[in-house]
This record gives sequence, structure tokens and C-alpha cells, in this order.
Amino acid sequence: MKIAIDAMGGDNAPESVVKGALKARDEFKDLELILYGDEQQIRALIANDERIKVVNTTEVIGMNDEPVKAIRKKKDSSLVVAANAVKAKEADALFSCGNTGALLTAGLLLVGRIKGISRPGLLSTLPVVSGQTGAFNLLDSGANADSKPEHLYQYALLGKYYAQNVRGLKEPRIGLLNNGTEPHKGSKLTQEAYQLLAADESLNFVGNVEAKDLMQGVCDVVVADGFTGNAVLKAIEGTALAVMSLLKDTIKNSGTKGKLGALLLKDDLKSIKGRMDQAQYGGAVLLGVKAPVVKAHGSSDARTVYYTLKQIRTMIHEEMVPNFTTYWQAQQALAKEVSNGGKATE
Amino acid sequence: MKIAIDAMGGDNAPESVVKGALKARDEFKDLELILYGDEQQIRALIANDERIKVVNTTEVIGMNDEPVKAIRKKKDSSLVVAANAVKAKEADALFSCGNTGALLTAGLLLVGRIKGISRPGLLSTLPVVSGQTGAFNLLDSGANADSKPEHLYQYALLGKYYAQNVRGLKEPRIGLLNNGTEPHKGSKLTQEAYQLLAADESLNFVGNVEAKDLMQGVCDVVVADGFTGNAVLKAIEGTALAVMSLLKDTIKNSGTKGKLGALLLKDDLKSIKGRMDQAQYGGAVLLGVKAPVVKAHGSSDARTVYYTLKQIRTMIHEEMVPNFTTYWQAQQALAKEVSNGGKATE
Repeated sequence: MKIAIDAMGGDNAPESVVKGALKARDEFKDLELILYGDEQQIRALIANDERIKVVNTTEVIGMNDEPVKAIRKKKDSSLVVAANAVKAKEADALFSCGNTGALLTAGLLLVGRIKGISRPGLLSTLPVVSGQTGAFNLLDSGANADSKPEHLYQYALLGKYYAQNVRGLKEPRIGLLNNGTEPHKGSKLTQEAYQLLAADESLNFVGNVEAKDLMQGVCDVVVADGFTGNAVLKAIEGTALAVMSLLKDTIKNSGTKGKLGALLLKDDLKSIKGRMDQAQYGGAVLLGVKAPVVKAHGSSDARTVYYTLKQIRTMIHEEMVPNFTTYWQAQQALAKEVSNGGKATE
Repeated sequence: MKIAIDAMGGDNAPESVVKGALKARDEFKDLELILYGDEQQIRALIANDERIKVVNTTEVIGMNDEPVKAIRKKKDSSLVVAANAVKAKEADALFSCGNTGALLTAGLLLVGRIKGISRPGLLSTLPVVSGQTGAFNLLDSGANADSKPEHLYQYALLGKYYAQNVRGLKEPRIGLLNNGTEPHKGSKLTQEAYQLLAADESLNFVGNVEAKDLMQGVCDVVVADGFTGNAVLKAIEGTALAVMSLLKDTIKNSGTKGKLGALLLKDDLKSIKGRMDQAQYGGAVLLGVKAPVVKAHGSSDARTVYYTLKQIRTMIHEEMVPNFTTYWQAQQALAKEVSNGGKATE
């Protein structure tokens, strides 16, 4: 399997991207990696180019570039050339740590939507602190600011396939993010989405869930409009960071007693940090397009890049996109048949 | 000044409510408190009834009662009778730890909206971990699931008056919760709200803010639609609790070394808990109605009740609602004049 990598995206590119790629290449013998970017810079970081191909590109899309414009104008950028390789089926997935909007645009315009999926959504993975599952998925976590009920329903189907294929959950519990758990609660959007979700018996829909319970593992996949999903994702990340930094500052400004206490607790604090670490789950995945399109944080180090490539490998290995597409096409055909009054079966 | 208190609302009612009320009464000599509820139960908790009045009521609105129905049917409930006292100007503010929806409904239907405020919003106060202000306000944190741009604009005005009158901030920094900081970012709703906020030069509008930066003190008042605001509030509360409980569990399951470390860090951990403690800021305030209507958590103890009464006292003392109403009426008159082509001034 081949992964097209934008080697120039992110704060620490190309170094962290290349180092992470080499680590993944060494661990997974079925991986072939294509690195797009400044060939000279990239080659300088590679001692052994087994299953590594470098494609030289002359442009870079920066963090502040306007996404649609950048994709249209910077034809020889590392991201656009990599995305076109996926479009041409020369690679099975697209990965970047660069400009999120540009990557999403490349996913939509170049890799392309699965027929009938009107709004691909961005799936993020976040840790839970209790229960056995270790994490939950949230989508849409920011691809679309305005959503309709059918988009939320499609996110549930897409998220289910992710949780099954990547996380190995047999019947992922799907929850609808809402401002109360009762079925009638919420905005017009969530009230209508609730009906669609509840009507699909193939989904293990556990009903409405509240943002306060997500880290307690109340469900495996949380469905939300991209505006609220993005806000909740950032609120969780910001709060976890704020509490941990408050802890750190308090200890730093503490007396000898506190400092000694912190020293004794060092291993425990480290294990908490490990538990809260998002990098282990890989990057955010644009679901609903014809191949995995995956974004890792701009600040990603080699370790995060490695984990994200591992995650992408699983998606390809388990054939997540083909599995979903087969299911989805059958559903679409069935829906068409029903709307034709069953004539197609006569 | 007089505060009407629903003594029967909340998990620990009437005990915690009455105890907290007594503490506030003892501290603030200008406070007169009217407790609504089961007179026998309440009287049993009061040794000295100086500046305390008890009004017997025979019904209680439970946490699971449907709000509108409960307000209409349970005419002799502690909440409805207390709200009617505020309506009749026998009290200056309404306070309850009970059913949030019922309290909001009582605020809207009985206390009543300020003319021209179409959707009163719920303001919450949350801690920040850096900077000098100690906290930020978030509204709407859940009164309305669906909002229009003008509602968000009204929240900014209402939040500004709260921050000025209660928190003593001269020019509160107003931020619009969005999924990016650039002015063009967001949903249709936030894009239009941005224009309204930016156009009002009387507001110290600092632009879009992201949920991850709220606890870093990026602004004093955050404006959001009630659906997203509620989700962000619960995400922050849930994450802070999750991280703290993870810390506690890790220490509990730790060896002797970790336990000793925790013992030495006890004071520091306590100070963090204090810093994150929301109770010190009082309850959530329904803004846009004719008197302060304030909700504290159902699980409130006497201390939280005390802090919330202190907060209500400040609102009454600083004349927050009259100040806002005077400003708002002038604005409305001005807007009317402008829309009449200035004829009124000729």
C-alpha cells in the first residue's frame, strides 16, 4: 500500500515528517511511502530509501494561505501534487501536517467525494478517562460550519465504519451531541437528526449525549455539526492543557515540600499525560471522500507522524473506504428502489 | 433589598438553601430574604429570623417536571410563588437551585422580558488559569437552542453590563465564539453576528475567539448561540472534572512513593481545586429579564448558595438591570428615530 505524504506541511517540516515516515516504513513492511516536497532537503534526511520515493515539488502552501485559492494556484505545491497522486490512484491515502483548510479542500476537490455524500466530515479521536475503550471519535470536528440533519446522519454512518475498521469495535455506540439527554431536547437540527438516527436500526444509536460525559466514555462515536464539534474539541483540548499547566505552575511556584511531592509523583503525572495524549490515536480523518485524507497537528513531532501513518495503514489494510462505499451504494440503490415504489424489483 | 428564594429547589433542599441564606443574611446587613417552601421544614432550620421571611407553599417542581407545564399547573409551587413575588415587585430578584428549564420559563413568563430583548440568555462564569481577571463569562450558555445574529449581539450588550456591574470591569473585552480567529471565519450565524458586533463602537469587541483559548483569559465575555455555548460549558466542566478525577485515581492506585508525594502536594492540589472552583462566582444568570433570575447547580451546598446570594446582592446593589434597561431604551429610541429618518428630532 502507498501513502502520499505532504513532506512540507507543518511547523517542523520536512524533518519531523521524514523522521516519522522512516520509523513507520521500518515497522510496517507493507508500507510504501511517497514524500512530496523539496527533494534536496528530504534526501538529506534519508539514509536508506527502501520503500521510500521522493517526488520533487517547488511550491509550499503556508498556514496562512487561503485554502481554495492555494489549491487552485499552487499547482506544484507538495500538497496538491500529493493529492493528485491519490486522485490518479498512484497512492491509497493522503497525509499532511500543514494548512487544515487546504488539506480539506484538496480532499474535496482533488481526491473527491463519495457519490451521495454531500458533506464529508472531519473525525477526531479523543481520550476517555474511564471504561475500557480508551477513546471516542467526534465528527464533524470542523469541516463544515453549517450542517443539515442528513449530514449528521451521514456522519454517524461514516463514524461507525471508522470505529469498526480502525478501532475494531463491533457495534460502536453512536451518540448525538445535544444539550440534554432526553429525546425531545435540542435545536431544530439535532431534533431532526435524532429522528433520522433513531430510525436506522442498523445503527447502535444510544441517543443524545452531553459534552460533559464524553470523556467518561458515554459512547464511541459522537455526531455533531462541524461548528459545535469544533468548539467542543477545542474546549476539551484547551481545558486539559489549562488544568495540566495550572498543575505544573503550582508545583513550580511551590515550596520544597511541594517540589519533593512532585518528584515522588513524577511517574504518576507522566502516566496521566500519557493517558491524555492524543497523538497515539493518529490524526483527524476526512471521511466521505474516496481515500483516507488525514491531518495531524501542525506542531506534530516524528512520533505523531509515525502514529498517524500507522492509523492510515490500518484504514487501508482494513479497506475502510471500500467497505463503506459498498455499503453506501447498496443503501442508495435501496432508497432509489423504495422511492420508485419497488418497480425496479418487478 | 429583597431576594425571593425557592427554598425547595435542588438536591439538598431545603437544608443547604436555608443554611446558605442564613450565612448571607448574617454577612450582608442590607439583605432581606424571603424563603418559599414548606414552612415547617424551613422554620426548623432557622433559629433567628431577623430579615428572614418564610412563605408557605404546598407544591414543589421536580427536576424531571416538564418546565412550561409545571409553571402553568403548579401554581402553589415554591418557584412559581417566588417568581410571582418578583413580578409583583415584592422582591428584587429570584433564586433557585431547582429545575433549570422551569426557572428559565418562570423568568420569561412571570418576571418577564425587557422590552425589545427577544431572547434572554443564560450567563455562566468560568475560571481562567492565566492573567489577572480570574474568570470569564459565557452567554448564552443554554437558554435558547436556536439563535439569530441579533440575539448574539444582544448577548454582548447584556454580558457587558454584567461584567461591568458585577465584576467591576470598566471595558470588558467581548469575544465571539468561533471556529477560527479570522474575521471571515465561521457559520452563517457567526459571520453575520461578527458584523453586528464590529459595527457597535461602544463595545470593546476583540473579535473571534476559539474555545481552546477561553481558559487562558482571551476575553472577559464570550458570546455564543445557546446550543454551542451549552456544549462548550459542559465540555469545559466535564474535562476539568475528568482530568482531576484521573489525577485522584492515579494517586489512589499508586504505590507508597506516589501516596507520599500526594501528601506533600496536598496544599498545592487544594489550591488548584480552589482556582477551578466555579461556586465562588455564584450561579448562572438569566439576562434580559426585568430582574435578576439566578440558577445555582442542583447539587449546591450552603457555601454555593451563599456565594450566589452575594452575587445577586451585587447585581441589585449596582442596579445592573435598571442600568441596562435605561441604556437599552435609549438605544431603541435612537434606532426608531433613525428609521424614521430623523423626523422625531425636527
